[in-house]
Amino acid sequence: MTRIIYVNGAWLPEPDAKVSVFDRGFLMADGIYEVTCVLDGKLIDYDGHARRLQRSARELGITVPLDEAGLLAVHREIVARNGVDQGMIYLQLTRGVADRDFAYPPADTPPTLVLFTQSRNVLENRAADEGIAVALLPDLRWGRRDIKTIQLLYPSMAKMEAKARGADDAWLVEDGHVTEGSAATAHIVTADGVLVTRDLSHALLPGITRASVLELAGQHGISVEERAFTPEEALSAREAFITSATNFVVPVVRIDDAKIGDGKPGTMTRDLRRYYIETRRAAAI
Amino acid sequence: MTRIIYVNGAWLPEPDAKVSVFDRGFLMADGIYEVTCVLDGKLIDYDGHARRLQRSARELGITVPLDEAGLLAVHREIVARNGVDQGMIYLQLTRGVADRDFAYPPADTPPTLVLFTQSRNVLENRAADEGIAVALLPDLRWGRRDIKTIQLLYPSMAKMEAKARGADDAWLVEDGHVTEGSAATAHIVTADGVLVTRDLSHALLPGITRASVLELAGQHGISVEERAFTPEEALSAREAFITSATNFVVPVVRIDDAKIGDGKPGTMTRDLRRYYIETRRAAAI
Repeated sequence: MTRIIYVNGAWLPEPDAKVSVFDRGFLMADGIYEVTCVLDGKLIDYDGHARRLQRSARELGITVPLDEAGLLAVHREIVARNGVDQGMIYLQLTRGVADRDFAYPPADTPPTLVLFTQSRNVLENRAADEGIAVALLPDLRWGRRDIKTIQLLYPSMAKMEAKARGADDAWLVEDGHVTEGSAATAHIVTADGVLVTRDLSHALLPGITRASVLELAGQHGISVEERAFTPEEALSAREAFITSATNFVVPVVRIDDAKIGDGKPGTMTRDLRRYYIETRRAAAI
Repeated sequence: MTRIIYVNGAWLPEPDAKVSVFDRGFLMADGIYEVTCVLDGKLIDYDGHARRLQRSARELGITVPLDEAGLLAVHREIVARNGVDQGMIYLQLTRGVADRDFAYPPADTPPTLVLFTQSRNVLENRAADEGIAVALLPDLRWGRRDIKTIQLLYPSMAKMEAKARGADDAWLVEDGHVTEGSAATAHIVTADGVLVTRDLSHALLPGITRASVLELAGQHGISVEERAFTPEEALSAREAFITSATNFVVPVVRIDDAKIGDGKPGTMTRDLRRYYIETRRAAAI
């Protein structure tokens, strides 16, 4: 690997990209992140990710150390320095370095800002063509999933458990309703062709791709209901799919042991994926 | 600060003690920790902490990279290198360094092991003499609090919220019962002199100091009930206290706006603190 990583204003070769063991991101998961997709070397849905970063930072009282223009400039420079045509930019912001204490350090403690890239073909995606299988697992995460924190141990455990069950990923269930995927928003299409997506709350992340897809659905005359749905509704859905920054729209064709619809990617799912890629690629910056 | 830090077998001055930004502890809170108290340069209740570390590691499928003797040797060496007479040793173990992915890296990925010390007077403790005030806050943590993971953002937020409310710390409440403190076990003493401590489950950490104090209570003829208790029971308790590795036993004299007992540290609490320090100091290794 020969990536160039951004760490607090410095551009470092990957082996030199380090943080203090006293970073509160390392010691206490006291940090947030964003993932922005890159297509044709440009940023997809960037404004939404930049806005959500500000929101997460505000909720936790962490300061974003760059202004809007500076943050955009760093995103563009890391794409250029790493020659990314397709892939993603990962950004992480933590409360910075301080001796370990549950109490926050002084407010003028410099936060830690790290960005790196991953190059990969996001347009050609076997999962998009064939669909994925998801396993239903209990949602054991904390109560403020609307904040995009780095507390990702449970989603990671759920991903592994899903794989152990022969699925590709997990859909998490709490109080009899699906919350979301391990790293994606969960959607279903009812027998009547209504797109059902859980309404926003502390229970799930306000997905940027979710918002774009709901907007596109509206523009194409698709009925949308924003409400929680049960695993039973999901199992009897005509279509199911996930949305996320780097997967865009990917069909779910099996939930636990049940085929969804005829077990093949649904037409609404395929259409929404095409709408998303066409419009967001054209609007990339 | 001039501490010497242990990082994966190396002894490093504090400014050089760093980990990769790709460490899963930094990116995903995929790690565990232990805190062992030091008195007279010796380790307090070490066996319990070493055993719990193994349990946490086993639950998450992380390998402890040192054997029993090696781990003890590192604890002793870090005390010696940093000249710690009183204070604590912090140990953190993560799943290691790998490009970011929710799926775990290959099982042979070397884990990351970090230890550092904090020197402070743990015997003379104003909180032990005067007692602390706690604020009752909702427990929003994840569902596997029996594993001592580094997902400490919410306990940290709760500590700050407690301070904002004029308290010293938080007691967390879920489904109408106290789970534990932000970084300590919660105990009450009923009007009848029964020591009530929540029974172990996924809802709370199996405290090492908790176990020692319950053992000591039994030896001194104190009746113990291990069961969940409500905030109302706590508010009407005769005494209340917390236990933790570095606080030992510390009285709680106020919960929200209510005085506990006569608002002064209780006698059972004082006795248990003395028993704990005397016996564990004598048995330190």
